Amino acid sequence: MRRKYIYLFGGGKADGRADMKAILGGKGANLAEMTNIGLPVPPGFTISTEMCTYAMTHQGKYPREFKKNVLAALRKIETLTGKRFSDQKNPLLVSVRSGARASMPGMMDTILNLGLNDATINGLIASTRNERFAFDSYRRLVQMYGDVVMGLKPENVNDRDPFEIIIERKKLARGIHHDTELTTDDLRDLVRLFQEEIRARMGIDFPQDPLEQLWGAISAVFRSWMNERAIAYRKLNNIPAEWGTAVNGQAMVFGKMGENSCTGVAFTRNPATGENEFYGEFLMNAQGEDVVAGVRTPLAISRLAEQNPGIHKQLLQVRKKLERHYREMQDIEFTIEQGKLFMLQTRTGKRTGFAALRIAVDMVDERLISPEEAVLRVEPEQLNQLLRPVFDREEKTLAMRDGRIIAKGLNAGPGAATWKVVFNAHAAEEWRRRGERVILVRIETSPEDIKGMDASEGILTARGGMTSHAALVARQMGKVCVAGCSALEIDYRQRLMHVDGKAIQEGDFISIDGTTGEVIIGELKTKPSDVVRILVTKEMSPDSSPVFRTFQKLMQWSDKFRKLRIRTNADQPDQSEVALAFGAEGIGLCRTEHMFFGGDRIDAVREMILAEDESGRRRALAKLLPMQRNDFAEIFRAMGKRPVTVRTLDPPLHEFLPHTEREIEQLAGKIDVSKERVTQRIAQLKEFNPMLGNRGCRLGIVFPEITEMQARAIFEAACQVKKEGIDIHPEVMIPLVGFVKEFKEEAHIVRRVAEEVFSQSGVRVKYVVGTMIELPRAAITAAEIAGAADFFSFGTNDLTQTTLGLSRDDSATFLPQYLEHGIFDQDPFQTLDQRGVGALMNYAVHKGRLTRRDLKIGICGEHGGDPKSIEFCARLHLDYVSCSPYRVPIARLAAAQAALTQRQHTSPKRKPKR
Amino acid sequence: MRRKYIYLFGGGKADGRADMKAILGGKGANLAEMTNIGLPVPPGFTISTEMCTYAMTHQGKYPREFKKNVLAALRKIETLTGKRFSDQKNPLLVSVRSGARASMPGMMDTILNLGLNDATINGLIASTRNERFAFDSYRRLVQMYGDVVMGLKPENVNDRDPFEIIIERKKLARGIHHDTELTTDDLRDLVRLFQEEIRARMGIDFPQDPLEQLWGAISAVFRSWMNERAIAYRKLNNIPAEWGTAVNGQAMVFGKMGENSCTGVAFTRNPATGENEFYGEFLMNAQGEDVVAGVRTPLAISRLAEQNPGIHKQLLQVRKKLERHYREMQDIEFTIEQGKLFMLQTRTGKRTGFAALRIAVDMVDERLISPEEAVLRVEPEQLNQLLRPVFDREEKTLAMRDGRIIAKGLNAGPGAATWKVVFNAHAAEEWRRRGERVILVRIETSPEDIKGMDASEGILTARGGMTSHAALVARQMGKVCVAGCSALEIDYRQRLMHVDGKAIQEGDFISIDGTTGEVIIGELKTKPSDVVRILVTKEMSPDSSPVFRTFQKLMQWSDKFRKLRIRTNADQPDQSEVALAFGAEGIGLCRTEHMFFGGDRIDAVREMILAEDESGRRRALAKLLPMQRNDFAEIFRAMGKRPVTVRTLDPPLHEFLPHTEREIEQLAGKIDVSKERVTQRIAQLKEFNPMLGNRGCRLGIVFPEITEMQARAIFEAACQVKKEGIDIHPEVMIPLVGFVKEFKEEAHIVRRVAEEVFSQSGVRVKYVVGTMIELPRAAITAAEIAGAADFFSFGTNDLTQTTLGLSRDDSATFLPQYLEHGIFDQDPFQTLDQRGVGALMNYAVHKGRLTRRDLKIGICGEHGGDPKSIEFCARLHLDYVSCSPYRVPIARLAAAQAALTQRQHTSPKRKPKR
Repeated sequence: MRRKYIYLFGGGKADGRADMKAILGGKGANLAEMTNIGLPVPPGFTISTEMCTYAMTHQGKYPREFKKNVLAALRKIETLTGKRFSDQKNPLLVSVRSGARASMPGMMDTILNLGLNDATINGLIASTRNERFAFDSYRRLVQMYGDVVMGLKPENVNDRDPFEIIIERKKLARGIHHDTELTTDDLRDLVRLFQEEIRARMGIDFPQDPLEQLWGAISAVFRSWMNERAIAYRKLNNIPAEWGTAVNGQAMVFGKMGENSCTGVAFTRNPATGENEFYGEFLMNAQGEDVVAGVRTPLAISRLAEQNPGIHKQLLQVRKKLERHYREMQDIEFTIEQGKLFMLQTRTGKRTGFAALRIAVDMVDERLISPEEAVLRVEPEQLNQLLRPVFDREEKTLAMRDGRIIAKGLNAGPGAATWKVVFNAHAAEEWRRRGERVILVRIETSPEDIKGMDASEGILTARGGMTSHAALVARQMGKVCVAGCSALEIDYRQRLMHVDGKAIQEGDFISIDGTTGEVIIGELKTKPSDVVRILVTKEMSPDSSPVFRTFQKLMQWSDKFRKLRIRTNADQPDQSEVALAFGAEGIGLCRTEHMFFGGDRIDAVREMILAEDESGRRRALAKLLPMQRNDFAEIFRAMGKRPVTVRTLDPPLHEFLPHTEREIEQLAGKIDVSKERVTQRIAQLKEFNPMLGNRGCRLGIVFPEITEMQARAIFEAACQVKKEGIDIHPEVMIPLVGFVKEFKEEAHIVRRVAEEVFSQSGVRVKYVVGTMIELPRAAITAAEIAGAADFFSFGTNDLTQTTLGLSRDDSATFLPQYLEHGIFDQDPFQTLDQRGVGALMNYAVHKGRLTRRDLKIGICGEHGGDPKSIEFCARLHLDYVSCSPYRVPIARLAAAQAALTQRQHTSPKRKPKR
Repeated sequence: MRRKYIYLFGGGKADGRADMKAILGGKGANLAEMTNIGLPVPPGFTISTEMCTYAMTHQGKYPREFKKNVLAALRKIETLTGKRFSDQKNPLLVSVRSGARASMPGMMDTILNLGLNDATINGLIASTRNERFAFDSYRRLVQMYGDVVMGLKPENVNDRDPFEIIIERKKLARGIHHDTELTTDDLRDLVRLFQEEIRARMGIDFPQDPLEQLWGAISAVFRSWMNERAIAYRKLNNIPAEWGTAVNGQAMVFGKMGENSCTGVAFTRNPATGENEFYGEFLMNAQGEDVVAGVRTPLAISRLAEQNPGIHKQLLQVRKKLERHYREMQDIEFTIEQGKLFMLQTRTGKRTGFAALRIAVDMVDERLISPEEAVLRVEPEQLNQLLRPVFDREEKTLAMRDGRIIAKGLNAGPGAATWKVVFNAHAAEEWRRRGERVILVRIETSPEDIKGMDASEGILTARGGMTSHAALVARQMGKVCVAGCSALEIDYRQRLMHVDGKAIQEGDFISIDGTTGEVIIGELKTKPSDVVRILVTKEMSPDSSPVFRTFQKLMQWSDKFRKLRIRTNADQPDQSEVALAFGAEGIGLCRTEHMFFGGDRIDAVREMILAEDESGRRRALAKLLPMQRNDFAEIFRAMGKRPVTVRTLDPPLHEFLPHTEREIEQLAGKIDVSKERVTQRIAQLKEFNPMLGNRGCRLGIVFPEITEMQARAIFEAACQVKKEGIDIHPEVMIPLVGFVKEFKEEAHIVRRVAEEVFSQSGVRVKYVVGTMIELPRAAITAAEIAGAADFFSFGTNDLTQTTLGLSRDDSATFLPQYLEHGIFDQDPFQTLDQRGVGALMNYAVHKGRLTRRDLKIGICGEHGGDPKSIEFCARLHLDYVSCSPYRVPIARLAAAQAALTQRQHTSPKRKPKR
């Protein structure tokens, strides 16, 4: 049997379905689905993505029967529309659009009005009785075709489009300013001028044969899958090139046929806040691209109710039908042709974190989806938007008083951003590479700007609505965005803008509030978001409660579904409290060295390092003991009965020594040692590769008295807090173990000191002693180490550094190239390298649990807060992940998603340990 | 059935055999064996090592039947000797000696003359008719027993032995100088004074009950297994504590019964040169320990032929019988008691590398052993002695003219050492830790000095013969040694010696020639050894030919047996030639960066690094191209048809930049760049952890033009040399690969350039492109990498650094503790960490060959020249090891040994590739 390459839709039934996105692309599948559920969709056909793959692997050629099949599909459309392709009386016009499996907005090409030529134009005039419209359509076809299919581009990147130049010239000659002022004759003239330009510049003619137009358009759309923009976008979004795009050929409908025609886009709910309201925009007498391009600012959809209540009502019904059917917020495109509604697209709508949360929770209330589905619908990283700081209200009041709020645009991407201004995408990337954070300001954004937008913290545009390119992409990326702020006068060449009489240059600070749309000159202080404030203070304010309530609901569901425990990395009592408010179930990593820096502690630490012998070190350590004990006691009190993992000293000693001449002198004076001795000791401790030097348990083996002091501080604090009636659970963790004997030596000291403290204080505390697994050798010898250690905690930062032989601090010089060349899919310090580091982890888990069935295993590297890495940890059946306090909610959600997606694949073998 | 703990020997038959060393210890097993083959051995019994283990695990207690069984054994000795223990008329005296499975000379305790007391002394006097001898024996027993069993030691480490002080006092009172001048009365007095000293200092009496003496002695010997010296020695020699020691009780025979008695030690062949001559020393009228301690310098064994031809002939027969029986050179101890020969010990004799080689080869000629056995008998490291530089003859002539040859001693350990002097073992360790290399000078050495000897390059003693402690241990350790150099006047307190009127202080340079016994003041130049000279020049001189011929014979056998190919790490044509002379079969690692430093190349390299853009880099690289091409061509010519693996640039670029202000200024001038720019670029390139930074293939991915230039140099050189008619085999190796895509990118450049060069030059050269496996991730993803790479070469230096998270350059601060605590068995940079790094290698070999059955795999880290690591590589079925030129012979031998020992275990699955 021949493979089916062409799928028809129209007249109430379709060959395809919504779940056939892989071969029909998103657009094609949903056009079929909408047709099947009875929505008004202009008839058409979808050429499957497999044809794209075929063409890519056959030098752009198609199978023999391909053209025949396309022609047969065209015949079907003719039958359904009653029009005929190439007909001079009542010609069928078609659009040819791309439609990939994953949405790639604006990345590939589209050609409209195919079928028009010097003969069929008369038929269009006759059937529409609108000569101006007909010539405008023809003009658009020649322009698009010349550009997309024939490849007539500006000669220099900075030049304007050659067709636009011709239009400008025409307007100049005619003394008019707007396209709308062009007469029918002007447009007819433009059609001719465009064709002449093509002939002159390309050496060939614009094809008058509608079929030739069609073949050209199909091939151009397929080719556009491999254009530079599309490739960059796929890289950014991890879309495989092998997927290919589908091509949709569809009967044209026209929103530009007078004042009872329009075109519009809408979301079935508010994509910024998630409110359950029909939310969209339309432009009277316009084609679809006019809306998306943001050239004219459109009207809110509610205005349609006034202008055409019938159509508005019809749209509301479509909205309801789509949401019931898809059980998801939809992003739709429609056209009204002379009072008749046509649906051109539906797809799952992009939304902000606020909206994702709200919609998911609301839909459970509306019984559209289950709590499980709701949990799966919010991207964990989106929660960042709720947790991200907002502008301080008082600061803003002051800014208003000082006249610093200089403009207001659309609140297209919520959040607060206060950074330096750049005016083009390239600059954004450049500044980012230098470590600067920026706000990208553009008149409007286009797909070419994608990488620059990704490199920016916020986006501000002068033109375009809530569904403009800038707004859509910013929401998808979770960037702060203010769109359509028409007060901006931007001069790209001067890298300058004027707003409200003020000049702002590249590098100047501005602040944009994506929640209110305000633009403020200069820097502005931020404060915790409402969600964070309520979590931490536990006070609820009436106005912020809806967001907080939906957040809490989602978190509760997440906690119900997830199997992983979530701990936090904290080494200060206040950090612990924030983490607790965020739902942390314990501390997975308390770095004791951070405590070494505060106040005059650093002096005692330095004295210890500079001591000539053990007794000198012990004298200095004795000064540190009460301070460490006090820190631990406070953390133990804050965490109560939750487990607290304290890591013994990890960094190399030279990190604690002073660096400048003056500091060295001061230190020498303070601890009564010669300056030369300090300098000499600093030189002695200097290491070529400190990452691989004398640190971690190596310190404790060379200077057991340090481990002893730390163990004493932990257990004295533990006994003290236990005496206060709190049933605490300290866990002592030995870092940088590579050999089981290292662990045994250190654990022996810890256990000996514990016994000493217990017998001195008359209190016993239950505790465990475990190890970091952060060296390949530790993973490889996990079976042995598990024989001695009570728990494992993967230190994936160092494990990544050693497994990949890659210093995090030094990778900046080649990381960009590595990402660009696809050597790294992601920065391996952000998302776990599963094939390399992950393989070692998997081995260690397996071998460790073979030795000790109930071995508790967690992760405390940065990856513990990364959703993809959390999913991996869940698959390894770790007991917990530990992450920074602000990532705890994200980890809770990611863990729940991991449990839900893994539910069908695995049966839970073990209950995770705290 | 009860376990047998006690094994008898005597009267021509024994319970034990030579192959029962595990339970009888070396001494006991060989006493049994000698008894069985009819040699005259005083009867006795061996308490098995299992009793030591039993006592260690039972708080020093023995099984119930133990004493009964010892008494029964004692009865047997009484029967065989006709003497009775505790008998007042004809008392049996016994010795109690340790005897472990592996020889631990002098490490454990011995007690002689057990059975003497105030009553049995009369029997001894009566039976020997020698009162003086009897009291001297009694004196010795009390002294040894007081020290070893009762623990009467000097109060301070630097004090003299309390018994020696009493003797000194006695001699002073009597106005005499030598022990031999002490009268019978003096000795009787000493016995009394010794017992009083014991009573006064220890609060208990010396036991008069012979049985109590026996039990005390047995327990003391068992205890001595755990003394500090023994523990240190075991650590140094990797002897497990669980082995325990056996205890030998044996009837005493006396070499101190007048002028027809003597005691001696001998080797069945010359242990320094290996010559087939009976080689030993004896002391008339002396006990065994007098010889070993080196207090009196003994006579050569040939002198015995004059003094007692009968006994000498008897000894020659024993020598012959032992060699025929053991098929190995023996180290024997004997005593002649009033004209009757008794054998007290035989064991495999320690020997120098020269002797090991000579004996092994001679014994094949003598049909005593097979070539396979001969190959297994030479420690690969011992070959170092043949390859090690010797003093330049002309230099020595000059030194002689200048009167710098200040003394001559015994040539106890061949080789040349010219380093700084230290006068005690502790100082030797200290200096070594500071990175200094030293010669340890002592009056005589003792077991306490073991660690200091190990830390020294050479050993020079004032007293002791060829079998003194210093000589024995030095030969075993392969150290240069001059012993018994009586001209030295050493003052430990002043850290000073006077020789030939010259004062030499700690830290001064001296030179010792262990081949001639000469001691030279100051530094002396060395030159290649005879073996090296002959190998390299291919000229054979008649006098050095015996050593060279045996060396060549052993190498030929090794080459016949080994499976591993041996390559060398060389990056200069002259190095390649030396390696070829040493038998290298190819180059396994040619580091291209070493070529970057010569002459004005470094300027071009620096210009390349400082270039502002790619075209600037290309300009600088173009200057390097002809130089690199020339280097490669020379190496290709030197290596001919043997494979040559060239590694592309590996080190981080900052290694090539200047460091001092002045150098920076010079460079800036030379390449016409501002000084600020140079300084800034140096700062930019600085890395926190250069080991894990931008180096290896990362450089080539960021700057593909570097890889391009190097590939061009390689292939242009290859085509040029091929045109000269040499069928060369270049192999290009990409370093620091962790991701298969890295390899593919680099290999793509190499292959593209190769094709370009081939088509330009009209010559094709067969080549392969492979990768280093030096990151854990490379090992983990070996299956993928093998899909793209033609070969693997384990870079075990970096693989060790990353797997263990251990910087070789920074490990000195904790390495000593790690070795001492037994965390490392060996320095992992010297001998492969098989459980960690080795596990990754094993995995990579397995996975790599699953992907590509015929994948060529080698090793080019330092471990490629380490015998133990080579053995491991052979087990992994690697194709080759690559090591520095001077280690090639060692690797050849080690590879042969690996093949021979593995022969029985495995069947060869694959033929190794070149």
